[in-house]
Amino acid sequence: MTDTPDLALLRRAADVIRGLAMDAVQKADSGHPGMPMGMADVAATIWLRHLRYDVQDPGWRGRDRFVLSAGHGSILLYSLLHLAGFELSLDDLKNFRQLHSKTPGHPEVGETQGVETTTGPLGQGFANGVGMALAARIEAARFDCPLADRHRVVGIVSDGDLMEGVASEAASLAGHLRLSNLVYFYDDNRITIDGKTDLAWSEDVAKRFSAYGWRVLELLDAHDTALVEQVVERALNDRADRPTLVVCRSHIGYGSPKKQDTSSAHGSPLGDEEIRATKEKLGLPVDESFYVDDSVRVAFRQAAADKTTNANGWRAEWTHWQGAHPEQAAEHAAFLERHLPADLLEQLVATVADQGEAATRALSGKVIQKAAALVPSLITGSADLDASCKTAIKDSGSVQAGDYGHRNLHFGVREHAMAGILNGMALHGGFLPAGSTFLVFSDYARPSIRLAALMGVPSIFVFTHDSLYVGEDGPTHQPVEHVAALRLIPGLHVFRPADGVEVAAAWTHALSRTTGPTAMALTRQNLPILARSESFEAADALRGGYVLREVAKAKATVVATGSEVGVVVEAADLLAADGITLRIVSMPCLELFLDQPRSWRESVLPPGGTVLAVEIGRPESWCVLTGSLDRVVGLSRFGLSAPAAAIAEEFGFTAEGIAEQLRSMLPA
Amino acid sequence: MTDTPDLALLRRAADVIRGLAMDAVQKADSGHPGMPMGMADVAATIWLRHLRYDVQDPGWRGRDRFVLSAGHGSILLYSLLHLAGFELSLDDLKNFRQLHSKTPGHPEVGETQGVETTTGPLGQGFANGVGMALAARIEAARFDCPLADRHRVVGIVSDGDLMEGVASEAASLAGHLRLSNLVYFYDDNRITIDGKTDLAWSEDVAKRFSAYGWRVLELLDAHDTALVEQVVERALNDRADRPTLVVCRSHIGYGSPKKQDTSSAHGSPLGDEEIRATKEKLGLPVDESFYVDDSVRVAFRQAAADKTTNANGWRAEWTHWQGAHPEQAAEHAAFLERHLPADLLEQLVATVADQGEAATRALSGKVIQKAAALVPSLITGSADLDASCKTAIKDSGSVQAGDYGHRNLHFGVREHAMAGILNGMALHGGFLPAGSTFLVFSDYARPSIRLAALMGVPSIFVFTHDSLYVGEDGPTHQPVEHVAALRLIPGLHVFRPADGVEVAAAWTHALSRTTGPTAMALTRQNLPILARSESFEAADALRGGYVLREVAKAKATVVATGSEVGVVVEAADLLAADGITLRIVSMPCLELFLDQPRSWRESVLPPGGTVLAVEIGRPESWCVLTGSLDRVVGLSRFGLSAPAAAIAEEFGFTAEGIAEQLRSMLPA
Repeated sequence: MTDTPDLALLRRAADVIRGLAMDAVQKADSGHPGMPMGMADVAATIWLRHLRYDVQDPGWRGRDRFVLSAGHGSILLYSLLHLAGFELSLDDLKNFRQLHSKTPGHPEVGETQGVETTTGPLGQGFANGVGMALAARIEAARFDCPLADRHRVVGIVSDGDLMEGVASEAASLAGHLRLSNLVYFYDDNRITIDGKTDLAWSEDVAKRFSAYGWRVLELLDAHDTALVEQVVERALNDRADRPTLVVCRSHIGYGSPKKQDTSSAHGSPLGDEEIRATKEKLGLPVDESFYVDDSVRVAFRQAAADKTTNANGWRAEWTHWQGAHPEQAAEHAAFLERHLPADLLEQLVATVADQGEAATRALSGKVIQKAAALVPSLITGSADLDASCKTAIKDSGSVQAGDYGHRNLHFGVREHAMAGILNGMALHGGFLPAGSTFLVFSDYARPSIRLAALMGVPSIFVFTHDSLYVGEDGPTHQPVEHVAALRLIPGLHVFRPADGVEVAAAWTHALSRTTGPTAMALTRQNLPILARSESFEAADALRGGYVLREVAKAKATVVATGSEVGVVVEAADLLAADGITLRIVSMPCLELFLDQPRSWRESVLPPGGTVLAVEIGRPESWCVLTGSLDRVVGLSRFGLSAPAAAIAEEFGFTAEGIAEQLRSMLPA
Repeated sequence: MTDTPDLALLRRAADVIRGLAMDAVQKADSGHPGMPMGMADVAATIWLRHLRYDVQDPGWRGRDRFVLSAGHGSILLYSLLHLAGFELSLDDLKNFRQLHSKTPGHPEVGETQGVETTTGPLGQGFANGVGMALAARIEAARFDCPLADRHRVVGIVSDGDLMEGVASEAASLAGHLRLSNLVYFYDDNRITIDGKTDLAWSEDVAKRFSAYGWRVLELLDAHDTALVEQVVERALNDRADRPTLVVCRSHIGYGSPKKQDTSSAHGSPLGDEEIRATKEKLGLPVDESFYVDDSVRVAFRQAAADKTTNANGWRAEWTHWQGAHPEQAAEHAAFLERHLPADLLEQLVATVADQGEAATRALSGKVIQKAAALVPSLITGSADLDASCKTAIKDSGSVQAGDYGHRNLHFGVREHAMAGILNGMALHGGFLPAGSTFLVFSDYARPSIRLAALMGVPSIFVFTHDSLYVGEDGPTHQPVEHVAALRLIPGLHVFRPADGVEVAAAWTHALSRTTGPTAMALTRQNLPILARSESFEAADALRGGYVLREVAKAKATVVATGSEVGVVVEAADLLAADGITLRIVSMPCLELFLDQPRSWRESVLPPGGTVLAVEIGRPESWCVLTGSLDRVVGLSRFGLSAPAAAIAEEFGFTAEGIAEQLRSMLPA
């Protein structure tokens, strides 16, 4: 860019942003002006001078990804998006935090053009950005397409972000993987909600990040425009061989005579009087709200035009690359559109057709190999439990620093960062990222799983060792409440398959789903082969629940999932010997079943019939179908360390035990 | 100790432990021999030479607390406890990981004498130990009783522990608070489940901990007995003014000819042949299982006697201190026994008796002030949300490095470590520790909340901003599934109070409970004053649910919690005008209600009557009472950013909206 806005203009742009932030929060009577005011200089410099975007094509793949991890400073991002020329008007800013506005309290991807990820819960954006940076590296290496990795992931992170464990985990991994395309600006304002950060924080952040393998730059005055420009330039254009943290010594609520450097600037409106005083100090018109200088408008408009020109240059290169590499380009296109073969389910089912008794985690491992061959978007990883969770893609190597062109990710023992990084990869596009750990540790990743559901991204969470049948590892490792608790997250689909066909269906669903994440609960132990009726089709399993065994004059229908389906079949056989006949329904995914048309639901669970349910975990999910806890064979207590067979005996989950309990639940 | 066992003996003790570890895992055909074999030298040295305990009185308060954060190495701890002379026989070791044994797969406090905390989920023990160290500091300072802080918290942590975010959070806080009574030995064996740690980990751990403000010592060969003794001596007896991390360069599966330094030694039996070869190499009898040298037995026996003598010396000093400080001693005794006044409920209710409309978080703030005056064990803290959660104890200062004698804890934005530290403080004894954050962030702390429940410790979790009425902050900050998901954790009691009386009851219950943790969900927004029948007594609220409004010839009973109780009252008034009369039940704690005798339950919910429920969140919990989701007014989707009143309107939670929905649910 030859017509660089000069420093005075950058300063003016920052002050205009401060004015917008103060006014929007005041008008909403709610929000966080302090961070936007403190980071306005850095942010204005990044956006005007450096950030690559194309307002004509906000989804342009060559754009830099901007992540506001400190999502409470949303008005900073909205102000930038407005000034930059995205579809966000001054009226939208005036509508900050109002019902159905484009400017919700925290940035939400999909709600506002130019917002790359949903942030607010601290540390999440940090991990998402690591995922985005990693995704670009892998995409470029796998398809031998350097252009896919020319952009950068640029973020603003707060002290709160850096205190969160999930960010520590992600930072360690980003350093390990030497993600030099990642640059975070840390808003070191030394103020937190409860006062000064030194109430609870005195670590040497620069040294810590250096220990993780990051380059650390110090911006000693985040309000000295010349210095800001110098350091931002170095951070973004003088690439290191590793991620960069810029420690920005800033002042929260910068410009406010009374509230700068105080926690009261953090999360409340400044008040009319203080806003007036601040505008006066900053040289903004004191009587005008939502004021934007013409000079600032013009500068952003010119920048937008330049950026679009640059984007067009990138596109020309892209077209050239496509022409020169038709084969990779075709593969890459399939990757980008998350292409799936039409007969995915059938092909996945075929891989497990002739399996004997097997654990669903092992069946999943077989399905993954086929899925990887069929679906270029699939990439898998584990939080140090590949060997147990069986999620590795065997004919691919491991993604490592400088050697990114593979499909196996090693997250280390970092479940939370894993989930946040998967979300970032999904947001980057192209990828259908899957990560695995034990089901009991889904709790560690829960905040990121929730965000996957809120954002509607297709992250895939593979949770094995899904019940008390973990056995000897004992109650710390035995899930009891986890399946039921995951089912409560709105929009998450939870599969607990009972055999290979259902595992294939679970993976088909996870890979096909475009509106949200899927979790799977898989067994450690072998499960029996299920006999199915002639009329069964694998697609029935994609309906969430289906009749596994139909009988005439059934006393009741028994619904079961996963490891309990086989034992219910045995129990039903025992009861049949006493003349008590039971229909059996396998229901690998309750959410999906409840979403089916009434006709399907009623064919599976005929209205008026007695419904019982069996699942070795908290029974609350099933009341929805049974109408009473007294008709669910479940488990509401912690387990015990013992071999799996002893566990089954102890808790009554043998065929005999289940039969006895079902018998007692039948209507007289 | 004058009769120090010599180095050869330490070496022999370590080898005996290796033998026990190999044999126990082999016999169980399950478990983790690698870490115990790698850390046996360090552990034997710590236990024989340094650790303070009294096998005659395992609960002796002057004991060092030993935390095996890498809980998968449980057989190391069990071997040590057996050799040290705790109630754990060789037969118990032979019963490793069997049903109802004293030697479960991972250490469980309460199941095995000498086990200080339940570990296995990585990072948790690390945080617990920080809590124990902090508790000792505070206890000594508050009661001016240096003896209470003479012991140390000594732990073994693994690479997995240090990768977990919760440990990073806790480490940062421990450094900030300069907990010099905390010494962790880090098993730096460079092997992880999936292979070498450098698959996913290349950070400079020593530098990172130094950045947190820890002293870092390096033990360059964890199998050089003389060096081990030197470094352990320095770590434990040459106290720094800050916590200590000892980086122990060890070999996983040490001694095994084929499996040392491989991940196959981590989590599987070595196999008979390899065990034989290892025993041969270590000079253990190859044909004997569970072999213990006489020399080792004698050494531990002598050490135990010396340690008891030392403990008796401590007790004598304690008695002396009590005599010299009768007032502090009385206070301290009340603290230790978690003394509560008999009329706690009445006194707490009195503090909120004359409140007008108020938020339950504000009412909780008032109750806390009184509770703090009445209950010396209560200590509160927040994950940087004191100002919002209102949990500070106003007449006390803030716990800071070197100034520990206060009752307000600042955890920073570290919800997970907060919960793990609270658990450690509760395990230390005396304390009834409470920590606060927003309800939506309970997800961040969930693994530690689960462990509080599994251990049965009285940690108190105060979660405010408990519903969509958070308002403008939007869906990232609005809980939908959290109350229901917390209720699924076995043994956790979840209170969602509707007014001051119920807040007082929630706190009374939380402080009185001796068998497990309590969580509270409190509102951000004001709630109306509830009219109660003459016959109501505050103690009714301690039964979990009670009749708020009795009516003749009710069409149905409506159960509600928290903010929905008031709106249900209004809705019922609207319906009463149409001749539809409803009983109203307030149910602040479902778990507690379900634990009541049948007579109480049936007096509240008469058998055969229609039960409806209203709660602004996932409805699954309530099916238990209503028998159908169709009789619950709940919410199964994410919220929106908007002022609270607009939220109520949008989602139909106004009096009119609720009335309409209830009407539609009534039997014809």
